[in-house]
Amino acid sequence: MSQTRQLHLGAFMRPVSIHTGAWRYPGAWPDANFNLAHITRLARTLEAAKFDAFFMADHLAVLNMPIEALKRSHTVTSFEPFTLLSALAMVTERIGLVATASTTYDEPYHIARRFASLDHISAGRAGWNIVTTGNPETSFNFGSDQHLAHATRYARAREFYDVVTGLWDSWADDAFVRDVEQGLFFDPDKLHVLGHEGEHLSVRGPLNIGRPVQGWPVIVQAGASDAGRQLAAETAEVIFGSEATREGGKAFYADVKGRMAVVGRDPDHLKILPAAFVVVGETVEEARAKRAHLDSLVHYDSGIRSLNIMLDYDVSGFDPDGPLPDIPESNASKSARDRTVALARRENLTIRQLAARAGSYAGLAFVGTAKTIADEMEAWLDERASDGFNVMFPWLPGGLDDFATQVVPELQRRGIFRKDYEGTTLRDHLGLPRPENRFFAKAAREVESEAAGDQPAG
Amino acid sequence: MSQTRQLHLGAFMRPVSIHTGAWRYPGAWPDANFNLAHITRLARTLEAAKFDAFFMADHLAVLNMPIEALKRSHTVTSFEPFTLLSALAMVTERIGLVATASTTYDEPYHIARRFASLDHISAGRAGWNIVTTGNPETSFNFGSDQHLAHATRYARAREFYDVVTGLWDSWADDAFVRDVEQGLFFDPDKLHVLGHEGEHLSVRGPLNIGRPVQGWPVIVQAGASDAGRQLAAETAEVIFGSEATREGGKAFYADVKGRMAVVGRDPDHLKILPAAFVVVGETVEEARAKRAHLDSLVHYDSGIRSLNIMLDYDVSGFDPDGPLPDIPESNASKSARDRTVALARRENLTIRQLAARAGSYAGLAFVGTAKTIADEMEAWLDERASDGFNVMFPWLPGGLDDFATQVVPELQRRGIFRKDYEGTTLRDHLGLPRPENRFFAKAAREVESEAAGDQPAG
Repeated sequence: MSQTRQLHLGAFMRPVSIHTGAWRYPGAWPDANFNLAHITRLARTLEAAKFDAFFMADHLAVLNMPIEALKRSHTVTSFEPFTLLSALAMVTERIGLVATASTTYDEPYHIARRFASLDHISAGRAGWNIVTTGNPETSFNFGSDQHLAHATRYARAREFYDVVTGLWDSWADDAFVRDVEQGLFFDPDKLHVLGHEGEHLSVRGPLNIGRPVQGWPVIVQAGASDAGRQLAAETAEVIFGSEATREGGKAFYADVKGRMAVVGRDPDHLKILPAAFVVVGETVEEARAKRAHLDSLVHYDSGIRSLNIMLDYDVSGFDPDGPLPDIPESNASKSARDRTVALARRENLTIRQLAARAGSYAGLAFVGTAKTIADEMEAWLDERASDGFNVMFPWLPGGLDDFATQVVPELQRRGIFRKDYEGTTLRDHLGLPRPENRFFAKAAREVESEAAGDQPAG
Repeated sequence: MSQTRQLHLGAFMRPVSIHTGAWRYPGAWPDANFNLAHITRLARTLEAAKFDAFFMADHLAVLNMPIEALKRSHTVTSFEPFTLLSALAMVTERIGLVATASTTYDEPYHIARRFASLDHISAGRAGWNIVTTGNPETSFNFGSDQHLAHATRYARAREFYDVVTGLWDSWADDAFVRDVEQGLFFDPDKLHVLGHEGEHLSVRGPLNIGRPVQGWPVIVQAGASDAGRQLAAETAEVIFGSEATREGGKAFYADVKGRMAVVGRDPDHLKILPAAFVVVGETVEEARAKRAHLDSLVHYDSGIRSLNIMLDYDVSGFDPDGPLPDIPESNASKSARDRTVALARRENLTIRQLAARAGSYAGLAFVGTAKTIADEMEAWLDERASDGFNVMFPWLPGGLDDFATQVVPELQRRGIFRKDYEGTTLRDHLGLPRPENRFFAKAAREVESEAAGDQPAG
């Protein structure tokens, strides 16, 4: 173990960047949605910078926006995560590969199988970002005219997780004896048929692929609601957080790690990595100017529509270059409205500037020099507001290159980020134990102690 | 166009080989189910031999066999096709990549998206082997305790095909204008929302990935029944055939190509490639001895169980080294029983030998020297019994290496197989037109004529 607590860094990626104005930024790659060479270059840059993981964003539909906004966004298309990450596995050697996969519109047998396959292909670098699909538009692509209720989606998600992890444990790690002489390919005592019959799912098994290299791919969740936090405390190994302030981060961190202790899990076995949008400049002013220019590339037609949705109030009749008026209460999401209003007041933004944020990204951002950004990241780490970040780059490749060449060396110099990978799997990078096979615990324990003399997984 | 009709060759692959005894053969790779380096080596060998396609076999369950048979078979696990083929796309440059995907237990939005993504990743090398899932065991892995009726599966498959191809046509080929100055990412007039509402499926669209490089990935079907032949004549571009004799092949070929003419399709726009198991020797006797040894590696416990199932009659009480007794009629599949009995009589096989075939592979086989195998392949081609073959190798890598170094040069010498790829896409290799976009036919036509001066697709 290192003496100093170490930062963990994921890169939250869309081919062009998560920012909807990014494709118009000077030097950006507007065609990255169709250009694998570009994405290969990004993945290799992230690996050279020793990131823990390449984390692929995903949606199961073209986003629901009016066509006037939609036609201006590069986010309408992308590669599919499993095919993309499998391809990237072949052009990288160490970086983790995290795919988003929905429990709402897919089958656990397919999901378990694909992640196991990605984990074998990548020699133990797969992670599963478990999501429920909250976008009602998606349901229309999957034969349903009504979106599943929130509670049902969560109950199904929990059962889905149990089934997928159970399927991964279909075969003991040492099931495949391949005794050529005797003609015995596997030991039948080391095969488990799941036989799951639950409220939402009925899946017999066994899975038709061997146990993943990592035992299970790393389990990632977002989980901000009370139910989500509890689920994460019980099952997650990485949380993709969304706290926008360090104080909020500290409260969230303490809450979730506290819940882990209550359910008997080691708090170190879950890494909390909030999303952070990072813009690097030679000076703070230059970084701010870069962001302002980027935001200005979000077409007002798009931004104002997104802002109206966030506020649940039409502000398009007001002066775009004036301040945000008082917003009346409504039945819509209070947290989205309050966060948006608070942002406008805190940064003294005009309606046009706020619309650009609403139409691109309005969460936690570090905008400054390598030194100020490293200061902020170190403060989050020291104060236990997070274990690292899921970094989002303002445009690609430039925003990533700036981070890799300026911020990463600064973090390394401070001794809070690795200079090289110490292990080979995503679990190694994150310091997470390899899960025991629930059906063959004893065998797994023997294998582990043989391999490393380590403690068995909790 | 070449003067001489050209043979097309697919390789029908499982990691260890399709033969259940293969993992025990001297020099075989018993661990190939978990070893991507092995499969990479196989794909590169196939590409160096200029095969049209690497064709990945698939099942959605561990095969339904008694445990005494199952434990002896390497076919219990494998990589998942989309993850595997995406990985292989990165270590090959020309060879086509065909994935099997079921219309019975998956969603058309997922399937359309994954194939489009594989086609973009591989720069136009994807093919879809459309199957309905006939293995009732699979249903237990997908929340259903009753398998869909045959007729329902086929009706759903046809509708599924319509939806998937419709989703691929969501975007015109020239939809993405990426006008940085104006902030226009795509032309809204070149986006089509499918809005499918059918008997089995309801899918709105549009697809969240651009139109595949090939327009549509190549459509592959098996289709042996009357309904299957008709569907293939209407929609398939490759048929994975199963005729065991040249006479049978000729009748099938004439029937399907005749049906194509009736529905107004160019018979050249469908390639009929029967499965062919190929064993190469320095002499015919050596080849036969290799096969006999391979078959002897199918454990009798497995073979006899498979044979009993094929015959729907328990022959395990008879002398394994004696001839097959007369088999009474039953309610089971007459064709499977009759084919098996006919094979035993034709080759004068003992019960033990027949059990080995039943437990591994009992269809069309070319067992001989490079010359005799090329003679047979050429005869099938000349007599229009096929347009080529889906070759199955007896064990790997040896059986493939023998074919690549001995049979392929002989076919090339005869001028009936390419010495190098002439194009870059799977459609190029197979001589298939790029489908027009059904919703933007005019634009597609202009693009095609600009690109190549070719005829628009039929």
